[in-house]
Amino acid sequence: MFCGLSAFPLTPVNETGINEKAFVTLIQRLVAAGVDLIGALGSTGNYAYLNREERLRVLRLAVHSSEGIPVMTSISAIRTSEVLRLAEDAQRAGASAVLLAPVSYQALTNEEVYSLYEQVTSSLSIPLCVYDNPGTTHFHFSDELHGRIAELPNVRSIKIPGVSSDPEEANARISKLRKLIPSYVTIGVSGDPFAATGLNAGCEAWYSALGGLFPETCLRITRFALDGCADEANRLSTQLEPLWSLFRQYGSLRVVSAAAEISGLISSPSLPLPLQPLNQSAREHLKFILKDLQSTETFCSPFG
Amino acid sequence: MFCGLSAFPLTPVNETGINEKAFVTLIQRLVAAGVDLIGALGSTGNYAYLNREERLRVLRLAVHSSEGIPVMTSISAIRTSEVLRLAEDAQRAGASAVLLAPVSYQALTNEEVYSLYEQVTSSLSIPLCVYDNPGTTHFHFSDELHGRIAELPNVRSIKIPGVSSDPEEANARISKLRKLIPSYVTIGVSGDPFAATGLNAGCEAWYSALGGLFPETCLRITRFALDGCADEANRLSTQLEPLWSLFRQYGSLRVVSAAAEISGLISSPSLPLPLQPLNQSAREHLKFILKDLQSTETFCSPFG
Repeated sequence: MFCGLSAFPLTPVNETGINEKAFVTLIQRLVAAGVDLIGALGSTGNYAYLNREERLRVLRLAVHSSEGIPVMTSISAIRTSEVLRLAEDAQRAGASAVLLAPVSYQALTNEEVYSLYEQVTSSLSIPLCVYDNPGTTHFHFSDELHGRIAELPNVRSIKIPGVSSDPEEANARISKLRKLIPSYVTIGVSGDPFAATGLNAGCEAWYSALGGLFPETCLRITRFALDGCADEANRLSTQLEPLWSLFRQYGSLRVVSAAAEISGLISSPSLPLPLQPLNQSAREHLKFILKDLQSTETFCSPFG
Repeated sequence: MFCGLSAFPLTPVNETGINEKAFVTLIQRLVAAGVDLIGALGSTGNYAYLNREERLRVLRLAVHSSEGIPVMTSISAIRTSEVLRLAEDAQRAGASAVLLAPVSYQALTNEEVYSLYEQVTSSLSIPLCVYDNPGTTHFHFSDELHGRIAELPNVRSIKIPGVSSDPEEANARISKLRKLIPSYVTIGVSGDPFAATGLNAGCEAWYSALGGLFPETCLRITRFALDGCADEANRLSTQLEPLWSLFRQYGSLRVVSAAAEISGLISSPSLPLPLQPLNQSAREHLKFILKDLQSTETFCSPFG
């Protein structure tokens, strides 16, 4: 479950509500492509913008449509008591795993983060993936803290942010973290532009935003890398450089949601205010980039 | 209302709920001291850890106990639709003003932040204070963006983070911002250790965490500074340096909540998990510091 491609679908949402039909279509694409794990309600799935009831409803839709592929969902919230409630919801709704980031308002200390994971993992009966995402949480895990948390019961994977684009530095980073965590805890890379480098450096999983929309493209990169064909994985990732450039400039969420709109998979707007869609010029550029990408994906929308 | 001392009381909260009786006691202290504005449910008031119903309940308690002193409350939330609902609640509950920070999960662009304030201010019938708090929001306002937002209807103050401790740099910073905003919009300094410098540099208000607990001490500094007695304001602030040092090390919330516990005004624990109380050695140090401070405050707890 925590090896290979974990695909994080969008949750299309705007001021009128959640587009459930479009969400299910996105899940069906992931099922058809055969991803290894569906990451419903990750950052790309807008979990932070939805309330508890909405998160439960979306998770149920994901589990119901997943056809046996395991579903992981975020249980992150600012308050521990809410995290515990979300963990209960996730387990009752049939999630196979949960993802937890130390989101905060007041900056958290290492001990507060450790205690959060300690309290949550002690009440879980399904595996947990530690979500290290300083871009949204502004919490910076030390490798030593990762090592302590990885020893807690039910911890089975760590979703790390992008690695260095230099292969030697990436190798050193993954090797150092690996030595500090139990062998049964996998390391998954996120930050899609860094995925091939991260997988080639020894990450077992790719936690992917693009994979939630274009799973076949991302599965090809993942499988080449995990089969030891580093050059081929790099080559395919390099082909996506125009897209990675947009990710770096506008953030993956805005780019992937615009790509889904352009592809006709979801209607616009698909982000909750105050988030605004990609600007028009970036969108035109994205349209051009997508022509190549779409031709390599088997579309499986129920709409045609 | 947006001049002088705005005092931000704690909202004592732990896993068993909100301590409403202790909260009212804190409000009564502010009323007795005669602060210029009560900032209920600011960052010090743990707004980010409370749900909409809890925020409404606490705001009502504050308004009910304020004896005519205006009450401002935070309406900050990650999603615009929730901000609008909180603004409605605030107005119905009798708040005199609202405080809005651009809190976010995905990093916001300048245009997204401007549009948030544009949408919210257009629906308000009470004044708004812009809450610039990069320590918790991680959004960095440019002075130019402040200038644009300050022109929006109902904007009447900007709560800025700490200024430079160098008086000349602080003067330059405030003068620059002042030129970009309408004359009826005040500038208030926060970051208590910088308050005297900020007031001496021309800020009209001090948005104060310490003022929520020790209003008399903070009123003295504020009045000296606003009366042109800069040296006296600096002298009183410098006397508090041991406290400011703890603020810098542990964050003002943890220190002020421990101070309120030590003073017998609230019971422990008074912070919501995952936030943990001040560690024991810092607490012992704080006890020592507080002996001086408490002797200068007229306690007005209903408990004696």
